[in-house]
Amino acid sequence: MKRRDLLKSGAIAVGAAGAATLSAPAITQDRIEINIVSTWPRDFPGLGTGAQRFAQRLADMSDGRFHVEYYAGGERVKPFDSFDEVASGNAQMYHAADYYWKGKHPGWAYFTAVPFGMTYTEINAWIRFGGGQELWDELAGQAGLKNLMCGNTGVQMGGWFRKEMNSADDFKGLKMRMPGLGGDVLAKLGASPVSLPGSQIYENLISGAIDATEWVGPWNDSFMKFYEAAKYYYYPGMHEPAAMLACGINKDFWEGLSKSDKLIVEAAASMENDVMMAEYNAKNGEALSKLITEQGVQLRRFNDDIYDSFGEAADEVYAEVVEHSDMARRIHESFVQSRANVGAWAKISDQEYVNQRNRVLGL
Amino acid sequence: MKRRDLLKSGAIAVGAAGAATLSAPAITQDRIEINIVSTWPRDFPGLGTGAQRFAQRLADMSDGRFHVEYYAGGERVKPFDSFDEVASGNAQMYHAADYYWKGKHPGWAYFTAVPFGMTYTEINAWIRFGGGQELWDELAGQAGLKNLMCGNTGVQMGGWFRKEMNSADDFKGLKMRMPGLGGDVLAKLGASPVSLPGSQIYENLISGAIDATEWVGPWNDSFMKFYEAAKYYYYPGMHEPAAMLACGINKDFWEGLSKSDKLIVEAAASMENDVMMAEYNAKNGEALSKLITEQGVQLRRFNDDIYDSFGEAADEVYAEVVEHSDMARRIHESFVQSRANVGAWAKISDQEYVNQRNRVLGL
Repeated sequence: MKRRDLLKSGAIAVGAAGAATLSAPAITQDRIEINIVSTWPRDFPGLGTGAQRFAQRLADMSDGRFHVEYYAGGERVKPFDSFDEVASGNAQMYHAADYYWKGKHPGWAYFTAVPFGMTYTEINAWIRFGGGQELWDELAGQAGLKNLMCGNTGVQMGGWFRKEMNSADDFKGLKMRMPGLGGDVLAKLGASPVSLPGSQIYENLISGAIDATEWVGPWNDSFMKFYEAAKYYYYPGMHEPAAMLACGINKDFWEGLSKSDKLIVEAAASMENDVMMAEYNAKNGEALSKLITEQGVQLRRFNDDIYDSFGEAADEVYAEVVEHSDMARRIHESFVQSRANVGAWAKISDQEYVNQRNRVLGL
Repeated sequence: MKRRDLLKSGAIAVGAAGAATLSAPAITQDRIEINIVSTWPRDFPGLGTGAQRFAQRLADMSDGRFHVEYYAGGERVKPFDSFDEVASGNAQMYHAADYYWKGKHPGWAYFTAVPFGMTYTEINAWIRFGGGQELWDELAGQAGLKNLMCGNTGVQMGGWFRKEMNSADDFKGLKMRMPGLGGDVLAKLGASPVSLPGSQIYENLISGAIDATEWVGPWNDSFMKFYEAAKYYYYPGMHEPAAMLACGINKDFWEGLSKSDKLIVEAAASMENDVMMAEYNAKNGEALSKLITEQGVQLRRFNDDIYDSFGEAADEVYAEVVEHSDMARRIHESFVQSRANVGAWAKISDQEYVNQRNRVLGL
């Protein structure tokens, strides 16, 4: 790493005149500035508080050597400008859902969630042991980034609708907020998908600018008060079976860190990946009960016909994605292979076990 | 923390004469000795390599301040003596399955896996956000320990049998290796459960000292060559729906660590919790295929009648567990509440989603 890159990326030891001549251990003894931008509203439960918890943990684990400043969406740059802010080296990290960048390259979608994709445990297996991280590194590296798993919302709900959804035809002409490839699937069914950051969904739904929206799940959605405009709450979502969130790191900054500091960042991100998922799983059930009993929300299940239509539309979307580039094709093929491999095991382990347990216990 | 305890527990700064007068930050700048004992054979895939990876990460994250020595089962103490070695302060940490200590208190079983218990994502939600860690801290604290989640095998297989298991009667008189409360469930069905460390199972199965055994899952079990003595491989296991592994830490040692060092230990343990689970999920499917095609293993599913009998027997076991003590009752009740709460959410999220995905894709 050249000294110029070190300065640009912010991996600069405070008060270290002549940093280029310091040994690596000496640099790590000094202060390292880490500015984190994010796509989430400040203190937003789960997404925002999780990103903030990660930032705080980074600072605390380093015993203060990491001087971490966290900026919620809009506090430093607009939510969707987070990518450029970090890729350019203006900030050192972002916390975001990488499918927000699918306009730059469709491969990014796979590193958050894709239609008919993998669950939390499945995607972790892909990223860590199925070649996922290597592909993510390649894609991110081309943009000057190094990305790590840093949170997960788990299986998302299918969305909030003003009317009952009984067939694929009901999606025709529907203006629905859904980012990522999920939105492209809806478009195949004749809907008009839009991608909006969380802070702008409510106003668009209430005003009628959009007809429907998905966000996350009961715990998160209850804070958004979507039930004021749309009472029908559908499950399960085909579009985000596990929204994996990312810590995107400026690559020059990352490469300038010592081995131990890299490991601290990795472990802090890994812990948030697990903690956030646990929090969603712990809080979604109760939140769903309250939505139903206190807000009159109508829980509905997408029927098999709709799911079959989702499946056909997803096939069309994927056929286009793999045509985009060699990179997109390799990511897709790796994903498909892991889904089949890990999914086959999940079928006779988690699925069979939970089916039997719930049957015997009447859960 | 008294100086005597500091010395005893090993949280001693090397070369720090007069440690009692040093401030905490000064101590953390120096070397901290961490001896880790474990219940696993050296280099045993998953369990052993995961514990070793955790030990290495601890050393690397601390930039060498943690001087970590890892001892596999038998290298310093026998596997099942790990608890006393750490509780006494002779070593600072163990890596083990806490249900090995259920003879000391039945509450320990809940912090690995119990019959009809929770899956990986469910147990993480209980430990982190459902009161589980607090109860674990209370139980461990009474023994002079502080314990953290540090790995998981996921849903385990039901075990290896020499004959087909068609009804609960087939368990009568069966000598089977199964630790924890799962073994107690088998005893209610008339079996004779035994608890053996991994290193002793194969010889006992081959010699006929035991008739059947469970261990972990396809990837791990394939290294044990149980198929040489028992061809029928049953799923899903009712006894360990997610064997959560523990890093048990001497409590005096833990309390002597600085805030940042505690966070480093926590994050390293949390990362191993996630990485080990990902590795099992990535490798079990292929291993199962090989067992079937290359070793002639016969894959079998426990039928509903057997599962119903497991359920009745588990009720009897739990009725006894809660009579043991107030502590046991409180752990059980917290577990049951989380299982119902998180399980209800899993039912309409992960379960419904995967059922639909697999139906549509033909997985």
